[in-house]
Amino acid sequence: MKTLIIVSHPDIDESGSQQYLKEALPDSSDITYHHLEATYPDGEIDIEQEQALLQKHDRIIFQFPLYWYSSPPMLKHWLDEVLTENFAYGYGGNKLKGKELGLVLVIGMPEKEYQVGGNEGFSLSALTTPYQAMAKKTQLQFLKPFLIFQFHYMTENEKKRILIAYQQYLMIEKFDTLRAKEAWVLDQMETIDEEMLPAGSSFILDQIKEIIEDNRMELDEIQMYLEQAGGSL
Amino acid sequence: MKTLIIVSHPDIDESGSQQYLKEALPDSSDITYHHLEATYPDGEIDIEQEQALLQKHDRIIFQFPLYWYSSPPMLKHWLDEVLTENFAYGYGGNKLKGKELGLVLVIGMPEKEYQVGGNEGFSLSALTTPYQAMAKKTQLQFLKPFLIFQFHYMTENEKKRILIAYQQYLMIEKFDTLRAKEAWVLDQMETIDEEMLPAGSSFILDQIKEIIEDNRMELDEIQMYLEQAGGSL
Repeated sequence: MKTLIIVSHPDIDESGSQQYLKEALPDSSDITYHHLEATYPDGEIDIEQEQALLQKHDRIIFQFPLYWYSSPPMLKHWLDEVLTENFAYGYGGNKLKGKELGLVLVIGMPEKEYQVGGNEGFSLSALTTPYQAMAKKTQLQFLKPFLIFQFHYMTENEKKRILIAYQQYLMIEKFDTLRAKEAWVLDQMETIDEEMLPAGSSFILDQIKEIIEDNRMELDEIQMYLEQAGGSL
Repeated sequence: MKTLIIVSHPDIDESGSQQYLKEALPDSSDITYHHLEATYPDGEIDIEQEQALLQKHDRIIFQFPLYWYSSPPMLKHWLDEVLTENFAYGYGGNKLKGKELGLVLVIGMPEKEYQVGGNEGFSLSALTTPYQAMAKKTQLQFLKPFLIFQFHYMTENEKKRILIAYQQYLMIEKFDTLRAKEAWVLDQMETIDEEMLPAGSSFILDQIKEIIEDNRMELDEIQMYLEQAGGSL
């Protein structure tokens, strides 16, 4: 699966959260990082190149700070220019069909304010309606958004947890299932250079692996049992 | 009441609907027409001037074509630049409090598609959530949007009806009440130069005026009667 991260931020060097996410990017040829403001400083978008880029990827991510409940202007400009009739919608316009659309939103206010009665008063599900409508029109499958609230108040541990979830959001096919997360962790463990670990500690990794695999077997057995029980009813 | 129409359109000379609305503008010192792309062709917004302009008006209108379920990028840029902390929200940020926010949206698809099961699939009430949230945050009173669907398919009569409703949306305090519309029509009639009418036809105007005033008296009597009846229950 190939993932295209379309980032929009007018002043990205000053953004701690965007820098953190950028440094967290897995070193993989399956991931393309594409910052619009840097690519097109004069705002002149190369439409053909953007459309070719979209077609080469399976998961499209819009990553931006939520300013006034929407994206910075550059991403809106990109939408208006790149998603043309006969490409993204209309006659013959099915070039995005079946791909996925994810949102990575960096949000300054706390999560609890985004509900009725909260200071912001509207849910992120309501505020992102324009993107849902755009996904519907272009036949993109809309993924559960990846929301980062108040990055600057996070502890180092919280940030690390965000980082792992972010990598999974970019790379795992069904990123929200336990099974996929297990597989991802086992994959990551394979890449660890055991010589870099403190002497005699690599057995801990083996043990973790064993526990994950045992858990998975047990869960699979339970599921099989439940399915059989369901079948005999 | 002073009204500021903030128009965003990247190519306004080519837009039949925007030209039609512009020509329909009442010749009144209470109305300011402000096209962002023309005012700031290089995108450099004069924040102080914009904030001063906002403070001089009571009703703020955002007028734009609905592209990808939102405004053109220039209006988004304007929001991000002009609605600063301590001006529009936050400590001391009550400069817009009590003013009104209206949307005049020009929409290419038919109204019936903007519902569940329709081609667009989402209502305009849902799609405009970001503007509602922005109004809440800045303490603007959000008005019922003024929606123009498929302008290019309208007959001349339909366009004229839109034009009158548009002028009322700009100028009348409670633009959606019958009482206010009556008062507006009577006002407009006062400005007609009777010498411009065909000879002997000005009595028709007098008759229309009389009918409107009689109707209003009758409606007021009915309302008084209903209120008394309600009181005696």
